[in-house]
Order: sequence, then structure tokens, then C-alpha cells
Amino acid sequence: MAEVKARSGRGGGRAARVKARTNPPPVYLSTLNRKVGPIDLLGPEGVEKIHNAAMTILEATGIEFRDPVALADWKKYGADVQGERVRIGREMLMDLISAVPPEWGYAARNPERSLRVGNQHSVFANAYGAPFVYGLDGVRRPSMLEDAHNFFKLSQMSQSMMVPGILPVEPQDVPVPQRHLELVHAALTLTDKPIKGSVLSEQAALDSVEMTRIVFGEEFVDNNVVMAALLNCNTPLVWDETMLQSLRVYAAANQPCLLSPFVLAGASTPASPQGGVALLIAESLAGMAYSQIIRRGAPMVLGVAIMGVSMKTGAPMMGSPEPGLMNLLVGQMARFYGVPWRTCTMWTGSKSPDMQAAFDTANTMWPVLLGGANYIVHSAGFLEGALGVSYSKWVQDALQLENFHRFFSGLQEENLDALLGDIENIGPGGHFLGTDHTRENPMHMNHLQNNDSFEQWEAEGSKTAEVVGTEEAQRMLNTYVRPPMPDDQRGALDEFVAKKRLEYSA
Amino acid sequence: MAEVKARSGRGGGRAARVKARTNPPPVYLSTLNRKVGPIDLLGPEGVEKIHNAAMTILEATGIEFRDPVALADWKKYGADVQGERVRIGREMLMDLISAVPPEWGYAARNPERSLRVGNQHSVFANAYGAPFVYGLDGVRRPSMLEDAHNFFKLSQMSQSMMVPGILPVEPQDVPVPQRHLELVHAALTLTDKPIKGSVLSEQAALDSVEMTRIVFGEEFVDNNVVMAALLNCNTPLVWDETMLQSLRVYAAANQPCLLSPFVLAGASTPASPQGGVALLIAESLAGMAYSQIIRRGAPMVLGVAIMGVSMKTGAPMMGSPEPGLMNLLVGQMARFYGVPWRTCTMWTGSKSPDMQAAFDTANTMWPVLLGGANYIVHSAGFLEGALGVSYSKWVQDALQLENFHRFFSGLQEENLDALLGDIENIGPGGHFLGTDHTRENPMHMNHLQNNDSFEQWEAEGSKTAEVVGTEEAQRMLNTYVRPPMPDDQRGALDEFVAKKRLEYSA
Repeated sequence: MAEVKARSGRGGGRAARVKARTNPPPVYLSTLNRKVGPIDLLGPEGVEKIHNAAMTILEATGIEFRDPVALADWKKYGADVQGERVRIGREMLMDLISAVPPEWGYAARNPERSLRVGNQHSVFANAYGAPFVYGLDGVRRPSMLEDAHNFFKLSQMSQSMMVPGILPVEPQDVPVPQRHLELVHAALTLTDKPIKGSVLSEQAALDSVEMTRIVFGEEFVDNNVVMAALLNCNTPLVWDETMLQSLRVYAAANQPCLLSPFVLAGASTPASPQGGVALLIAESLAGMAYSQIIRRGAPMVLGVAIMGVSMKTGAPMMGSPEPGLMNLLVGQMARFYGVPWRTCTMWTGSKSPDMQAAFDTANTMWPVLLGGANYIVHSAGFLEGALGVSYSKWVQDALQLENFHRFFSGLQEENLDALLGDIENIGPGGHFLGTDHTRENPMHMNHLQNNDSFEQWEAEGSKTAEVVGTEEAQRMLNTYVRPPMPDDQRGALDEFVAKKRLEYSA
Repeated sequence: MAEVKARSGRGGGRAARVKARTNPPPVYLSTLNRKVGPIDLLGPEGVEKIHNAAMTILEATGIEFRDPVALADWKKYGADVQGERVRIGREMLMDLISAVPPEWGYAARNPERSLRVGNQHSVFANAYGAPFVYGLDGVRRPSMLEDAHNFFKLSQMSQSMMVPGILPVEPQDVPVPQRHLELVHAALTLTDKPIKGSVLSEQAALDSVEMTRIVFGEEFVDNNVVMAALLNCNTPLVWDETMLQSLRVYAAANQPCLLSPFVLAGASTPASPQGGVALLIAESLAGMAYSQIIRRGAPMVLGVAIMGVSMKTGAPMMGSPEPGLMNLLVGQMARFYGVPWRTCTMWTGSKSPDMQAAFDTANTMWPVLLGGANYIVHSAGFLEGALGVSYSKWVQDALQLENFHRFFSGLQEENLDALLGDIENIGPGGHFLGTDHTRENPMHMNHLQNNDSFEQWEAEGSKTAEVVGTEEAQRMLNTYVRPPMPDDQRGALDEFVAKKRLEYSA
């Protein structure tokens, strides 16, 4: 019977098999294990120079921690504290940095969606914080909670968006003190992938940790990464109180922070890739070192957010070459320090999902992956210098992530001798479409990429990629299915949010 | 006096200097000397495996030369010729390939526009052969001679388009036997940059060489590269008569051919990067080896034109990951053989200068430059799977080339100690916009990239990158100035074309 079944499957099912291959069910991409790159721009001497420059900045110029608790902590730990200025010797700094884990698992509430961060592992995370959306009608308007929900839903359905995050857009219709409640609740219930935590305030950070404890259990959270928090340093050389309060909460909870100088290269740093990287490395390392005073061994991430600055208008520029080179340098320095690193990408100053938007998006992603970034933020949807998220572009970007995933996964093992047999059999002037190897190794396809003839494209409505992206976003939202969650977890989570909502509106 | 002048220049001229820096005069980019990459995907054993596979293909399966002269030449040279099938032993093949120069100068009639090809040197060349244009009104129509002229003019004005080429579009309003005359004449008179030669027929190749001799002189052409010809192999394993006739003309004239298998990966080659590259390397090496029988030491280029194939429709796919990986492999093999290599890029199946077009364009260029391609064809304008050239996209693409040129030129030398002084002086919370270093090191800017606020963009007409590109193309054509050419050269060239035009219309 098995024999008959198999035969019947082979005889009658070829069309079905081909269809199954060309319309495969969604395959959720897990952590990208990079096999292409990373590119090292510097020799060992060049690395040493940037390292020495970063150490000199922290020893001679110092860095401001505008937060009394942090200043007291540093003083107690033996750093040179004068006013808000902290000067840290390189031995102390490097000892603290040596405690940062080089790699960690990133748990999702659905274990099949869990990831790894560090070394050759890279993950794609959602956009973060835009106050505007470019809606399903293409019109720009303030972001609402419904938009945040929609982008969580799209993230859940996307094969490539590994981390839905916490703040896919900034919901203007929710009072600020309650925002983190709605967002963490939505991230945990609308998706079953790894999330981020809020850094709006110390309380928001505490609540974020508390809500993950409800879902994952207290002990699990204390021993595993279940969220990551994005903290920005005010470049040059200022860590502020709000960020440091959140840092202490997450470090104490053993949850990683992405400690990210926000760099306008040429404005907040020198207009030199090497000089800019020395500065931002100093800033990020100082934040990471402080986290290790709070809890030695807590996972932390060397972070950067690098854009250029137009020397004409002072506007941020995304997609220009110097920040790309800086990302390569940051990657090499992170490998030198043995810590995971995080960066921004897939963004643009364009106000339309057009050629500029796509060029900037692609041109910011290639250097980031070539630099071996481990935690890649803003991987889909940004327009308008990160002020807006477009539904259309989000969907198109997410499919580009699949493309990048395939490329950077590199070559598969191949039996060249068998292929030589095919070449001998087919000979000059033949084709390989019918070989077993071709049928078993379909090329990667982006199902929104249109390669039809002009005539067919025109007959089907001359749809641009913007139109196609919007239609696909609508189709995905129409077919979204909420991932299951045990009733007791859901109940406890709802109860927590209801209680806190009341508390914060008082 | 000199002292006073210098002071006056420094005192009163700051605004002018800043303006000169932010609105600099055109700087024509010369050869890109790559300092980023190339990426080697394979270890020495992997290279040896692909080399052995390519040699086995040529020894065991053989390759067809569908041309009686070539068959006689190979037989005389000692290869195993049976019918049209030629089998070439690896010793013979590698001896012939060893005579191919690794690098050469590429002379323009304006010496300031001359280039270098090979090793770390890369040049950007124009699109080639599209029968359709997407006009200044955005509407698609057959290409005309005026369009060819226009794209030569844009190439002349572009800072980044180093090689205007020979066939920027296929002019449908010129009878086929006369096309090469009009095109070579236009390339030589409307631009002063390096050109390509026609491969339409043996006569077209002969005329191309003759016309460059009029401009450069007979002896100069015999000793210098003044043009390159693009020859396609019919993959798998067929070189046809028309291509071989042109190859003999150009090899005899000491001018390089880009010997390029036209690859639909998965259809004309195995659906395996390694297997596909083994096959196309075999094809290109066989053509290059034949050229060395015609004239040992003639410069030749290992060429490829790689796209994927949709397993749904059979349509070519541009911008998918496997051809990108194949380009990395071809680059590594070209370095193994010590020969320059050529590939295609910046293309798309899109029928609109939209997000898809830009994604595909960028995603085909990055692997090509990471693979260290030396002669990069189709660097601007293609839509519709290379069937159409868009004015708007051409202009936007050409500015992207400047971006790529800057990125792949890598880091400049930097005095980190001086920058540390700036950081110390500026300290926490300051900015670097006013430092000498920032003013003297402006970031690269794409002048069509819009980074303004949404409100300003909207007030100025909400122009997409497509609209901006078209307007810029029109502006450039309105301000084009023909480069000077000595009267005697121009007269002789006009006379040659007039005589031949008459001859071929008879």
C-alpha cells in the first residue's frame, strides 16, 4: 500500500508537487546565520588605534552620567567622578566589558520563534517609534493604537520579521503614561515572537518586566532573555537620567539593553568614520560597563544609530556612504570587544514609497549585514527620516528581508560531480529546467516582485510596487489569525493592564 | 601682497567657500579603486573544485563553435574537434588563458576620461541594447536614434557614467545595416569618454575599429584599448558564428571582448551557484582561449550576464539572491585565473521606476562590487528585464553610482589625535558642525535625494523620485555642451560614415 501510495503520489501529483514548490506554505525564517562576510576594513593596528582613541576619550575627556544614582554607583566603584563627568580608566572599563556575554538566546513565548543574538547570528527587528503612518489609503496621518496593532499583526504573519518589537508606531491616541501597557500587552498577545521592552520611564520598564514574568514565569525571565530595550545616548558623551533608570531596571532583571548613541555623523560626531566610531564606541562601552556594575554578566548590546547630515540643510541623511563605512567599523570593533552589536537600517528620508525610499533602504541594509550586525532594528516600513511608517513599504521591505536572509546564508553544499553528469547529458544548446536538481532546488522568489511582460502588467492594471504593497498589507490584515495563549496567562495579563491603567489615569 | 590676498581670501570668503563646498562643480569620477572587499566565498579547495569542474566540462563534454573558421583554427591548434564540438585539454586551455593581460588602460579621446580595468579597478558602463524607452513624459515607446543621442549626452554629463558605450538603446528608426555607423559616430562625437564597439556583424566590427583609428590613429589603436565589445555565449556551451566573427576582428585589432555567457540560472545552467558558475566559466574561458589563438596577448575579459528564472512563469528574475552569490563566485574564479571580469547589474523586471525597480537595482549592484567586478555593464536606466531604459531611472541610477564609488573607495587616512582634540574641546552635549575638520570633509550628498520635512516636500509639489529624475534628465539635456573635437577628425569621421551609409543602403 505504501508503495502504491508513493507511486500514485509520483504519477498523478507532479503538477501538485510543482505547485507546492512554487506556492510553498509560509516558512518562518529563524535567526540568520551569516556565511557571507563580515568585512574587516581595518588591520589589527587600525583596530588598536580606534580602541585607544575610545579609551582616551573616556579617560581624558570623560562622559556625563546625568543621574545621581549612576554617579554614586561609579564613585563607589572607583571611577573618577567630578560633577556629572565620569572618567573611567581602561583597565576598569575593559574588565567590566569582559563580563558581557558574547551571545544569547532570545526567547519567544512560542519556542519555535525563539532566536539567537551574537557572533554570526543576526535577527531582524521591527521599526520603532514613528509618530506618523502612511496608511492603507497612502495618506499620511498621526499613528494610532490600531496602527500599532496592525504592524504587530503584519509582523506575526511575516516570514522574515523576527522581532515585532514594542513600539512599531507611537500611538497618539493613548495617553503617554498608559502607552507602554497597551503596547507590551499587544506585542505579547497579537504575536508569539520575541518582543522589546518599554523605556518611556522607570515605571514603564518595571511594568514591561512584570508583564513578561506573567507570561514566561519569574524564574525563566531571571535566567533567559525575553525582551530587549532600546536606549539612546545623547551624542556626544551624555547618558541621561531616563535612560539610566531603565538601564538599571533591565540590567537587574538580566534583560539586554541596546545601548545606542544616536549619531548624526558630522554634527554629533566628527565628520570622519574613524573619529565618529571612536566616539560612539566610547559612549556605548561606558553604558555597557555601567550595566555590569548593576549586574555583572547581564547581556548587553553595543548599539549604534548612525545617519549622515546634509551640509546644505542640516537634515539627517539616510543611505549615504559614510554611515555605511561606519557600520563596517562598528562591527569590527564589536568583534574586537567580543560583544553583540545593534544598528539601524532600511530607512530613508523620502516622503513616498518610491525609488529613493528603496535605494536608501537597500543601501543602509547591505553595509549592516556586511558588518555582521547582530540585532538589526527598523527592518521594515520607515519613511520620512524615521518619522513615518508606510504600510506599503513595510510589506515590500519585509520581503526584501527574505532576500537578504537567503543571500547572507551563503552557499549550500553541492555535489558538483552529479551536476557535471547533467551538463554532459544536456549538452550544448539544451536546458536544465527539467532536471531533478532544478526541480528540487527552486530559486528564491519574492512573490510581490513583478517579472511579467509589459503587456501583461499593463493588462493587470499597471500596478506600481507601492500599490502592490498596499494591497498585500490589506490582504494580510484580512487573513490574520491571533496566535493561541493559555487562558490563565491572558487573564492575568489583562488584569495587570486593567489595574495599572486605572492607576496611571488617576 | 600674496599675504594680503591670502588673508582677504580667508577673511571675506568663508560664505563663498562653504557654498563652493556644498555646491561643488562637477567632479568626474575616474576608475573606482576598490578598498572594500572583494569577498571570497570559497576556500582554496572550493576554488579548485569549480576549476576542475570547468576543465572537465571542456575536456569531456566539450563546447560547440558553430563557425567553420573557428573550428579550423582549433583543429590546427591541436584541440579535439568532432563536427562542431571542440574538446580542449586543460594544459592547452590554461596556457592560452595565461597570455590574457590581467589589467589594462582604457583610452578615451579626452585623456582625462581614460580608465583602468582589472585587479582592484572597476569601471561603470552604460546600459546596452534596449528596444524601448520610458520617455521624458514617462510613456513607453520604441527607442529612437534621438534617444541614443540623449543617453550619450547624459553619459557625457554624468559624473559617474565612465563608459557611455555604444548601444544605450536600440534605435528602431535606423536601418539595421547602418545602425553601428550612427552609434559609433554618436559615441565618438557626443562624448569624449571611452566607448564600446559594435558586434552586429563582422562588417560592423571592422567599421567600429576603422572609426576609432580615424580618431585615435592606427598605431595608437594597435597598442591601446580604445573600445570594448560585448559578446554573448549561448549558454549552455554554444559560441555562434556572428559572435566569433566579431571576436576575430577585435582580437586581431588588440581590442578586448567581454566574453559573456548569457545565463538564466536554473534554465540555461544548473540551479546551483557552484554548478552554474563551473559551466559559465568553462564557456567564457573557451572563448577567451580562442581569442589568444587569433592574437596572443590581446586583452580579453571573462564575462557573465546572470539572472534567475521564475519557477512560476519562466520569466527572468533580477535582484534575487542566487545570481548575487554567483557573481561573488565568478569574481573569485576570475582572480584565480588572473583575468579581468565583467558582469551586468542595476537592472530589474519592473515596468515602472518604482520601489521594486530600485530594490532590484541596488541588490544587483552590491554583490557585483563585493565580487570585485572590473567592467560593470548596464549601470543605469534599465527597466522591464533590460527591454526598456527609463530617463528618470537613468538619472537616479547614475547618482547611485556616485554613492557606490564613495563607499567602495573605503576609508581615507585620518589623524585621530587631532580629532581627539576636537572631542576634548567640544565635550559632552556639544556639536562638531563648526570644526575645521567637518567643514573640510563634507559628507557625500546625492543632490536628488530629498531629506526635507514632509511639509516642505509637500509645499514643493510632493514630487516622487520618478518625477525628480525626469526633471533632472530634462535639465541635463537642456544644458548639454558637446565636447570639442578637432575639425580634421570630425571631417574624416563624417566622411567615413557618409560613404558607408550609402554603401549599406544600396
